Amino acid sequence: MSATTSAEHEEHPGRIMSGEMAQQPAVLRRILGEGAPRIREVASAIAAKKPRFVLLTARGSSDNAALYAKYLIEIRLGLPCGLTSMSTTTAYGARPSLADVLVITVSQSGGSPDLVASTQAAREAGAVTLAVTNNPDSPLAAVSEFSIDIMAGPEKALPATKTYTASLMALHLLVEGLRGGEAPAAGRLPELAGRILGRQDEVRALASRYRFAERMVITSRGYGYPTAREAALKLMETSYIPALAYSGADLLHGPLAMVDNVSPVIAVVPDGKGGKALQPVLDRLRGRGADLFVVGPAPQVEAASAGFVLPTEGVPEELQPILEILPLQLLAYEVTIARGQDPDAPRALAKVTETR
Amino acid sequence: MSATTSAEHEEHPGRIMSGEMAQQPAVLRRILGEGAPRIREVASAIAAKKPRFVLLTARGSSDNAALYAKYLIEIRLGLPCGLTSMSTTTAYGARPSLADVLVITVSQSGGSPDLVASTQAAREAGAVTLAVTNNPDSPLAAVSEFSIDIMAGPEKALPATKTYTASLMALHLLVEGLRGGEAPAAGRLPELAGRILGRQDEVRALASRYRFAERMVITSRGYGYPTAREAALKLMETSYIPALAYSGADLLHGPLAMVDNVSPVIAVVPDGKGGKALQPVLDRLRGRGADLFVVGPAPQVEAASAGFVLPTEGVPEELQPILEILPLQLLAYEVTIARGQDPDAPRALAKVTETR
Repeated sequence: MSATTSAEHEEHPGRIMSGEMAQQPAVLRRILGEGAPRIREVASAIAAKKPRFVLLTARGSSDNAALYAKYLIEIRLGLPCGLTSMSTTTAYGARPSLADVLVITVSQSGGSPDLVASTQAAREAGAVTLAVTNNPDSPLAAVSEFSIDIMAGPEKALPATKTYTASLMALHLLVEGLRGGEAPAAGRLPELAGRILGRQDEVRALASRYRFAERMVITSRGYGYPTAREAALKLMETSYIPALAYSGADLLHGPLAMVDNVSPVIAVVPDGKGGKALQPVLDRLRGRGADLFVVGPAPQVEAASAGFVLPTEGVPEELQPILEILPLQLLAYEVTIARGQDPDAPRALAKVTETR
Repeated sequence: MSATTSAEHEEHPGRIMSGEMAQQPAVLRRILGEGAPRIREVASAIAAKKPRFVLLTARGSSDNAALYAKYLIEIRLGLPCGLTSMSTTTAYGARPSLADVLVITVSQSGGSPDLVASTQAAREAGAVTLAVTNNPDSPLAAVSEFSIDIMAGPEKALPATKTYTASLMALHLLVEGLRGGEAPAAGRLPELAGRILGRQDEVRALASRYRFAERMVITSRGYGYPTAREAALKLMETSYIPALAYSGADLLHGPLAMVDNVSPVIAVVPDGKGGKALQPVLDRLRGRGADLFVVGPAPQVEAASAGFVLPTEGVPEELQPILEILPLQLLAYEVTIARGQDPDAPRALAKVTETR
């Protein structure tokens, strides 16, 4: 333990992360209430510019939120879309021509200098620029033509939780706004999120399975794939268990060799087309005798070694990622506590404060 | 061991992969000689259509080759570029409008039904389609408007080696062709590749470090990042060691917590801007006491725990990935042999042949 760990951390490990996870229903309610009109306004101003391509720029958890938006943009909007390789701008000075391109930069803090620089360069290259951030007064928002506030309130734990779900919610409203529609089903999310987060005891019992795990594989397809990546990041940041995320299709192209009874698999099974596309992968995993933990509909959980039944009544597949990640945040938290570590104080963070 | 493992495999583990790695200098020479005129022809026909946006579609090792092409396209061509999320087309039926879009599909076999379907859908949606494949008679080449043969000859080992470097070479010539230029420095690659592959004994000695590794982190930036991802895939496919690839910038956003003396780090340090952008990450890793193995220029290797000095005299940074991966292919091979496994017969592949 580093000298910077406060007494409070030692007495209540995970207190900060726990508190922030619990705020998620309220944050979702705030975005759907106070936030939605402003997001709709921004969306219609952007729609008027008729972008033909979309580029998304982000890092860490925000990059997983950006990937979620990529699926929405390709499927719901029918626009070709890519994730930015930021170093092409910041390290190599690439200045692509960006007329007709919408560049969306997702950043909790809105403060990373490379994100600010690449957004500014995109704007100079003719792109329509939009910042999606938890800090409307940030440098990122300042250099962007448009900005959306995800209204999650200050986030202090290193592992992003409420800013992740808030980013998904805001991006979903943005895309529905770009289509000129609303998202009435989203109104059910705060209550369902509350119900899921209320099942922490159930997740605690499941977490004991991974007390001694040396690695994990997390898989999904379609809208669930960003959830798989975010869950892997959460587990690594908090518990340091190497967690590898693969889309189901990619898993069959090689990494499957790594899956056996020492590599438990977590599958995020969307209730919809993504889940259907994942079926052959699930069958293959069961055939290999993999230890399979499912987050998804009841029949999928029953056919697995263990799992968490996700309530999604009336929630279309494209909104389910906002719920799917919640039991996996809880799992990362509980596994970390079970291993005697503090989810609020990952090693790398503590190291930053050392002077050397 | 499965019953399908032949006696030959047991007597000469890795014979097939080893033979295919050794062919790489000859394959590169063939593409630069016989292949280049046809690639230039295709490139100028595509350039005449003035694409404004590029989408790349691929899986597995070809996806890492596609990522290399993404850097070239953004930096050398100045075109915005994205990697396709294939399930948006194949599972969700998205039909984005693709006028002015060049869709490049990279596939060794050219036979995956989902790649064929998504390329066909792209062509129907108005895209200019190009197949980059090792089989010019494949269904993928048939549905694409243009195709390029990577001329690697049949590849039989599960871990792709020569088709990976051949794809990089072909994609590089394509991008230079789209710019209306040539790539004279590429002429040095076959000889340098031969020199690197001739240092297998040196790699064998280094491989013993990882005999008992339980996980690995591989990092790079810019042009070297696709190499990091491909090296991670190679290590996992052959040795089953969980190997996590991160761009240097992403590594600092969380996963760094996982890096300590039990997670050795391999850094691919390009001799150029990418390597320069990686410096703060290397300094941070050294500060944490990480076991750091460098593939790159001599001074970088000397400042690390161990490494492989990459000869790159006269080779610009954008061509170095064709060389960087070679010692890492050898490393994956040698680590696997050292662990008493057969690089030619990964577990998942053997399983396919079982009837159940």
